[in-house]
Amino acid sequence: MRPLVHPPAEDITAQGILHALADPVRAAIFASLAAAGQASPCCQFLQLMDRNIPKSTLSQHFRVLREAGLVRSERRGVEVHNSSRCQDVEQRFPGLLLAIIGAYQQQWRQGAGT
Amino acid sequence: MRPLVHPPAEDITAQGILHALADPVRAAIFASLAAAGQASPCCQFLQLMDRNIPKSTLSQHFRVLREAGLVRSERRGVEVHNSSRCQDVEQRFPGLLLAIIGAYQQQWRQGAGT
Repeated sequence: MRPLVHPPAEDITAQGILHALADPVRAAIFASLAAAGQASPCCQFLQLMDRNIPKSTLSQHFRVLREAGLVRSERRGVEVHNSSRCQDVEQRFPGLLLAIIGAYQQQWRQGAGT
Repeated sequence: MRPLVHPPAEDITAQGILHALADPVRAAIFASLAAAGQASPCCQFLQLMDRNIPKSTLSQHFRVLREAGLVRSERRGVEVHNSSRCQDVEQRFPGLLLAIIGAYQQQWRQGAGT
């Protein structure tokens, strides 16, 4: 089983975060995890924004979020549970996540650009 | 000669901005244009962050920035002059650009992640 790799907080980069969140589906997953404030199983996101997301695509999305330092993943039996690393990112780049998620939320309210 | 295409302000998306600025060189070009507050010729950026950037690469970067709605380009004779569209983006997503450029500036100060 492949290990789940997490960058240390000091290795989180602005370009890594922007790249990971430049995909609206990943941004929606991350916003949901950040709002939940607790670990959630991957399978919870198989339906998102009125779309079905294939399991393999979802795994890819979580890998990108994890490698950017946005998400911490943990195996629990056959499931992988994920939680946001908001605090690590906030400490490194204050205000960045709030601005990005705020921009998407505004866009989603307008029902465009997903 | 290919026309220079600019999206109208209402078509600017969060994912477009994040994708365009997920490249540190593009972010540096944009930050410089935003700080200048006036149109600058492309050739000004052939040396950036202690690197030489090939002209073709630079053209690509400006195309991505332009298509994301971050930059307005204008042909003046044989040169293309560019200016930032900060106001358009700020109106659409208040605070987003400031947070992104702020994150990069912090990273650049620490001399990492370019």
